[in-house]
Order: sequence, then C-alpha cells, then structure tokens
Amino acid sequence: MSLHVTFLGTGGAVPSVRRNTSALMLRREGDRLLFDCGEGTQRQMMRYGTGFDVSHLFVTHMHGDHTLGIPGLLQTWDFNDREASLAVHVPSGERRAMRRLLDGTGTDTGFPVRINEVGAGDVALEHEEYEVRAFETEHRTRSVGYALVEAARKGRFDRDRAQELGVPVGPKFSTLHDGEAVELDDGTVVRPEQVVGEPRPGRTVVYTGDTRPTEATEQVAAGADLLVHDATFAEADAERAPQTGHSTAREAAELAASAGVARLALVHVSSRYAGRSDVLAEEARERFDEVCLPDDGDELDVPYPDA
Amino acid sequence: MSLHVTFLGTGGAVPSVRRNTSALMLRREGDRLLFDCGEGTQRQMMRYGTGFDVSHLFVTHMHGDHTLGIPGLLQTWDFNDREASLAVHVPSGERRAMRRLLDGTGTDTGFPVRINEVGAGDVALEHEEYEVRAFETEHRTRSVGYALVEAARKGRFDRDRAQELGVPVGPKFSTLHDGEAVELDDGTVVRPEQVVGEPRPGRTVVYTGDTRPTEATEQVAAGADLLVHDATFAEADAERAPQTGHSTAREAAELAASAGVARLALVHVSSRYAGRSDVLAEEARERFDEVCLPDDGDELDVPYPDA
Repeated sequence: MSLHVTFLGTGGAVPSVRRNTSALMLRREGDRLLFDCGEGTQRQMMRYGTGFDVSHLFVTHMHGDHTLGIPGLLQTWDFNDREASLAVHVPSGERRAMRRLLDGTGTDTGFPVRINEVGAGDVALEHEEYEVRAFETEHRTRSVGYALVEAARKGRFDRDRAQELGVPVGPKFSTLHDGEAVELDDGTVVRPEQVVGEPRPGRTVVYTGDTRPTEATEQVAAGADLLVHDATFAEADAERAPQTGHSTAREAAELAASAGVARLALVHVSSRYAGRSDVLAEEARERFDEVCLPDDGDELDVPYPDA
Repeated sequence: MSLHVTFLGTGGAVPSVRRNTSALMLRREGDRLLFDCGEGTQRQMMRYGTGFDVSHLFVTHMHGDHTLGIPGLLQTWDFNDREASLAVHVPSGERRAMRRLLDGTGTDTGFPVRINEVGAGDVALEHEEYEVRAFETEHRTRSVGYALVEAARKGRFDRDRAQELGVPVGPKFSTLHDGEAVELDDGTVVRPEQVVGEPRPGRTVVYTGDTRPTEATEQVAAGADLLVHDATFAEADAERAPQTGHSTAREAAELAASAGVARLALVHVSSRYAGRSDVLAEEARERFDEVCLPDDGDELDVPYPDA
C-alpha cells in the first residue's frame, strides 16, 4: 500500500512567496486525507497535483492560517458539482466555530458536510486497514494533533517451508496465511504458526499542527515512521516558542529522538526565517539525524519499515 | 503622477494554477487601492511586489471569489502590527455580510476597519486629485463597479509667451499658472488665459467586477483610459453569460468600442478556457482593437492621454 505525504503549506501564520500557510495531504493508496487547510490550499493542491478527491479534512485548531482555505475549497467542490459527503474533524468544542466560518463566508454546499468534534484519544476515522486518532497538543487554544496508524499486517508466508511440510500450492496457502490450520490428504495438520511469521507492524504518520512539545505527542509518535512537527522558531528566538504555543526546531528534534521516530519533518516555519530557514534544519540535526525541512510541494514516501 | 494597475487575479470563480480569483491593485503615485480580494490575494501581492500599504479596499460584491482573501490579508496586517485604519467599501446593503465574513473567520484586528456602504453614483473615496466612484452593475446579487476618475489638471503654461509679454521668470509664473492675473512693473496686467492652455483632462480607470454589459458602465467608461471588464465567457458559451450575470469577451469589446475607451483588459476568465484563453482576446478583437488579456502579475501603465 502506497503511503505518502505532500507538504502543501510549510509556512507559519504569515505566508511568504516560498511558504504558504498550513496544509498537508496524506495519500494512502486511493484515499486522500487533508490535514489543515490554510488560505490558498486549493490552489496548492492544483499546483502540486495531489488530486481533489478528499473525503476527510482534519483540522488541528481554528486559527486562520489553518482554516481560511476551507470555504474556498468547499465552494470550488460545489462549483464542480461534488456530491460525496465530506467529514470535517475539529477539536472538541469547535463545531460552532467551524459552522460560523462556513456560514460567515456564505459557504452553502450541495453536498453534505459533517462536522465531527474529536477529543484527545478519539478515533476520528476508522478504516479497515488504518485509523486516524486525535491526540493532545498544547497551543493556547482548543487543539489536537492527528496520527494515522495502520493496522498490523499479516506475517510473511514462508512458501518454501509450506511446501516442505507437504502443503500443495493452491488455496490452502491462503487459508494458512489467513490464520487457519489445514489438513493434508495424509491427515497431517499444518498450523499457521508453522509457516506464517509474526504480524508485521503497520506504519504511523503523526502530524502535530501547532504545539509546544508534549508527552502525548511523544507517546503517539513512539516508533512512528514519520513525525511532522511544529518547528516555528530557531534557537535565537527560543523564548518566543512558549509565549506563542509553538516549538523550536531543536525541541521538535529532541522529541523525535526520545520517541525514536524514523524521520522528522519540520513545518510551520516562521516567515522571519525567509531565505535562511536552513538554520532550523541545522539546529535540529544537532539532536536528531533524520530531519528534513520540506518546501511547499515536496513529497515524502513512507515505506514499510521492513520493505 | 504615475498610475498603474497590477492584475493580481484574472481567473473566474474557480482558481487555476495560472489564474487566481479576482483582485486588482491600482497604484497612483504612493497610493495603493485594492479592488476585490479573492482567496490568496495577499500572497499574490507578495509574489508580484505590489507593496502592502493599502488604505482602501473596494469590494464589487460579496461572492467568495472576490472576498475570501480579505480575512487572511487583515490577519497578516495585524500580525505585522498595522496601526493605520482601513476602509472597506461594499455595495449598499452588504455591511452586515462583510461583518459576518470578518467575525466568522475570527478576524479581530488591532487597527480600525471601517466598512463603508456605497450605492451606484456614490463617491467612495474623495482625494484632492482623484475620486473613486461606484457605478451600477448587474450580477444577480448586490454589486457595483468602481471608477477612479482624476481631476482635470491645469493647462500647459507657455513660458515663451509669458516672457514675450514681459513677465519675469519667477513667482509670477506660478501665480499665473494657478489662475490669477499679475501686474508687471510697468502697470501692464497679464491674465492667466494669455499664457495658460485649457485644463487637461485627468485619467479614468474603470473596473466592473462581475457583470452583464450595462449602460451605466458605458457611461462611466466614456473616453476612459482603461476599462477592466468581466469577460468570463467565449462566444461558444454565450448563453451562459446572461444566466450567470457575466459577459462574453466580445460583449466587453462591444461596450469598450461604444464607450470609446483607450484600452480594454479582459478579466474573470473562466477556468474552462485553461490553456486556450486566447480565444477570448481573439473574439474581442473582432469588435475592438486595443484589447489585452492579462495574466496574473501583469502590470499596465496608464499614461496621460496627452503625454
């Protein structure tokens, strides 16, 4: 199953020519999940060719740089005669604020829009093969982060061993792989644990939105394949981070190291670092190696750890 | 006095990679006047270097593709500690809708925002050297267009003639140019009409916003230096224009020809013509020669007609 992320907006509260306000597209096979939707996100989706067929929008908090692209995107869908329903997930207590945003902008769509409040720990989206969970963040307003967590996959099927045990190539292979024992023509019983390895973990992608470093993030990100974390500030402005409910790039890296993630992407880069945002990556790398500082439009594939 | 226009968004209701939703920056010397403000306009201003110091925003109507950039622009100004007041001009009856847009998006600025309703014929902005007037348009919602109309300039001062008449080079030149007679040392009186030509007309720039062709537009655009007109549709889709309250490019050109404008710019190009919008310019040129089809970021200087 393919899983990849397109960074649609890597900037902070004020956009720049290089970095738009926050939005992240996560594509898992044919499913498109959009996380946050700053002003201009619909055009970023067009520019970077992510496709438009989004069923779920996950909003980390209601600040304008994460939400002002929602009305225009919904209006464009409406112009395009969208019929499929859209789920908009917001932090607990923000349903009315989201409704006010849609009403205040005259957004009245022909397709159903379901606003779903999610608290920390809630599963916002449940799918056969993955779920999207909300977790606690800390940003001086109602906020949550989101983690896409895949279900464990079946263990590897050892075809050679199965044939050695006398299992004929055919439907009995699937039966065993699905976890059921089979009886051979000679009466021998082969049990799945003889030919199927341990279940293999699925992948986890964590997106914090705007936040201080939190324990909840560290827990949900434990062993994650990708952590996309607030990295608004460089060390020179470190005192601004707690004042504004954000993180420094180094703080994000420290958390990534503690959580043992495979990879860290730094986002929500303040426009004050225009032309010198590399300092964020440099400061983060002093604490954690696998850091990237994506530009708008950059894509990351998230491979299976055992691939 | 320099006067020029930057096309910030030349697309229709749905943006494309090439054309953003509606916005137009008009700069007259140091004054920046913004007309309409679709989603993403603040970033277009950054991208095309128009400057950010805008005192007046003129909204033709409240549709999202003309207004959804307002909250983010105001929020960015607020982040940048703007203190200067902003006037937002809206069609009569739309003060509450504009207030709802600002409130619904949580836009609460530290600088004063004055919402000013203007009806057709009203002067929205009065300046010593120009005014911005609203005029009637027709778009199936409350709407107006706007015309910037410069005051007439003084006639040319004929220095040679003045010296022939015995006026000494010096302050008496200014007195005459300002319209007052002067008395020379020998008692002769020189009157201004002897040395100053006829007042020279100022320039006029007309911006319609979304509209059917209207008589009011033709009147306000009579002899205008630049007419920026709705040209949403090509002739192949001409029946859509009256249905949706828009114009075809050819209709805009016919109006420009009747009004005798110096130049016509076609905007609000439907995304259906992506990659083939030249058809609009071609169809317009069958009716009027001085047509342009600007791209986002294009600038036009508006020279004095006698320059």
